Amino acid sequence: MSDRKISEIGEFEFISRLGLDLPELPGVLKSVGDDTAVLGPDEKGRLLLLTTDTIVEGVHFLKSAPCFDVGWKAMASNISDIAAMGGQPMHAVVALSAPESIELASLDELYDGMKAVADKFGVNIVGGDTTRSKQGLIVTVTLTGRVERERVALRSSARPGDRILVTGKLGGSILGRHLRFGPRVDEARFLVEHFSPLTMIDLSDGLASDISRIAEQSSVGARIFAEKVPVSDDAVKLSQKDKVSPVGHALFDGEDFELLITMGPEKALRACGLFEREFDLCLTVVGEIVKEAGKVTLVDVDKTEHELKPGGYDHFKKHN
Amino acid sequence: MSDRKISEIGEFEFISRLGLDLPELPGVLKSVGDDTAVLGPDEKGRLLLLTTDTIVEGVHFLKSAPCFDVGWKAMASNISDIAAMGGQPMHAVVALSAPESIELASLDELYDGMKAVADKFGVNIVGGDTTRSKQGLIVTVTLTGRVERERVALRSSARPGDRILVTGKLGGSILGRHLRFGPRVDEARFLVEHFSPLTMIDLSDGLASDISRIAEQSSVGARIFAEKVPVSDDAVKLSQKDKVSPVGHALFDGEDFELLITMGPEKALRACGLFEREFDLCLTVVGEIVKEAGKVTLVDVDKTEHELKPGGYDHFKKHN
Repeated sequence: MSDRKISEIGEFEFISRLGLDLPELPGVLKSVGDDTAVLGPDEKGRLLLLTTDTIVEGVHFLKSAPCFDVGWKAMASNISDIAAMGGQPMHAVVALSAPESIELASLDELYDGMKAVADKFGVNIVGGDTTRSKQGLIVTVTLTGRVERERVALRSSARPGDRILVTGKLGGSILGRHLRFGPRVDEARFLVEHFSPLTMIDLSDGLASDISRIAEQSSVGARIFAEKVPVSDDAVKLSQKDKVSPVGHALFDGEDFELLITMGPEKALRACGLFEREFDLCLTVVGEIVKEAGKVTLVDVDKTEHELKPGGYDHFKKHN
Repeated sequence: MSDRKISEIGEFEFISRLGLDLPELPGVLKSVGDDTAVLGPDEKGRLLLLTTDTIVEGVHFLKSAPCFDVGWKAMASNISDIAAMGGQPMHAVVALSAPESIELASLDELYDGMKAVADKFGVNIVGGDTTRSKQGLIVTVTLTGRVERERVALRSSARPGDRILVTGKLGGSILGRHLRFGPRVDEARFLVEHFSPLTMIDLSDGLASDISRIAEQSSVGARIFAEKVPVSDDAVKLSQKDKVSPVGHALFDGEDFELLITMGPEKALRACGLFEREFDLCLTVVGEIVKEAGKVTLVDVDKTEHELKPGGYDHFKKHN
């Protein structure tokens, strides 16, 4: 065919290639293209969710990262994917590749981290596979979850006029939050219980990237208002070092693991009020869904409007 | 605690450590310690099976192995685990770590191999995760399956007096069969439909190793009769090169991906007759389950009896 390298097309295009090839499958409501696969429904109208996430030493965490935190992140990133569907996480299997030289105490710590966040969210670790790696730790967690059919939150249901909302404050997760974060399971369940149908994704690649995925899957466009984006203290801190503006970090940094939601304007108004009474966390309107498919723009503080290109962490492309 | 390395205790002990730590979980019938986790049952009395298997370049396959075959193996080894529970495989997710330099054509081939064996056994690939690796390809497939509660074939139900049976001929899989093998789904389904309850495992680490696992999980012992072990042509071929006897290869080589079964003597007799009329494959009695827990012996051709130590491929130990 050709000798193109995967680094030339990036992870997203590669995943799309796979998706295009997949036929419509019986019993499969949604496969490649959302936070998790959606299977079922069973006799009670519940859907089974299935998701897998790998973290690689030297790519997603440094060799120097505490093993407990690495285990936490491997499990929590999957829990976050189930949360983004409005689901309740259930059962996990763990595939671990480790170099021969690794100390047992480190692996025990890794599992302690996984178990700590699994316990917190009612996840059972039910099995796994342990293999030797040639270089560094690689942890793949696969997680099942369950959600009522009428509450499943896909990426593909955003409609023009919808408000775009985010939980929490964004940017600068690299200063620590990207490892020991708390997946937004309870918050997501609250939202789907009170405001379904809605559209949802977890912020793993950055707001600019992830809103583009919703736009693409829903065949709509989006406008984000720079002045409304909630900026974390870490984004401000980072900004003092690297000259990228705090809102730049909030838009383009990955691994916030907050929720990005769209819903109708009246519902959005009610949601913000109810949510902040229920949780110690802000829910903020940051933009709106528009009709023009694929057109994702940023309305800057000076009211000028720019195309918002996904600048998130794409595993196969160089950073700017 | 200590600075013991994982290479000092081996994969099996490490997995046991994890198992010991797991509490009894609601809705989890079986976790670490069998071919798959067993969850459920659902409203119709069916169990959900969940399994994960990783293959690593340089450990489970060579860099020179055809990508199609690597994909086939990654998927087929999971299908084989579901088969070993008596189950029907259903939905798979694929976590792929690849070096940046890999060619797209190679990845397409890899997925073609996965899809080929998935299609053959009615498995839907419903999602995945693609990440960058620091060295070589690493493929983790996680697979769900389903089995009727009364037909699930555990490792822990072998009883003294049971006959030990294997499908096919064993040994020398390294000459090619270890990559493009056909998981024994139909054969396993046939056996559990006609002869449940029975005990079953797939031969991934070698007969000597895998019968020890059944013995351990069932708190029994086992005797294998050397002269009854069906020896493959590949075992004979390999034996001409390396001076290990053909039956040595049949006992200790890994990755045959045949079924190892135990059931009562009358059922075993009927099973052999029926099975060989149904399939173009032999089903052979190779030994018997005995009372003495953990005592696994080989009755040699000269009738002398020796302890049969697991000599299968343990990923963290050196070969003899």
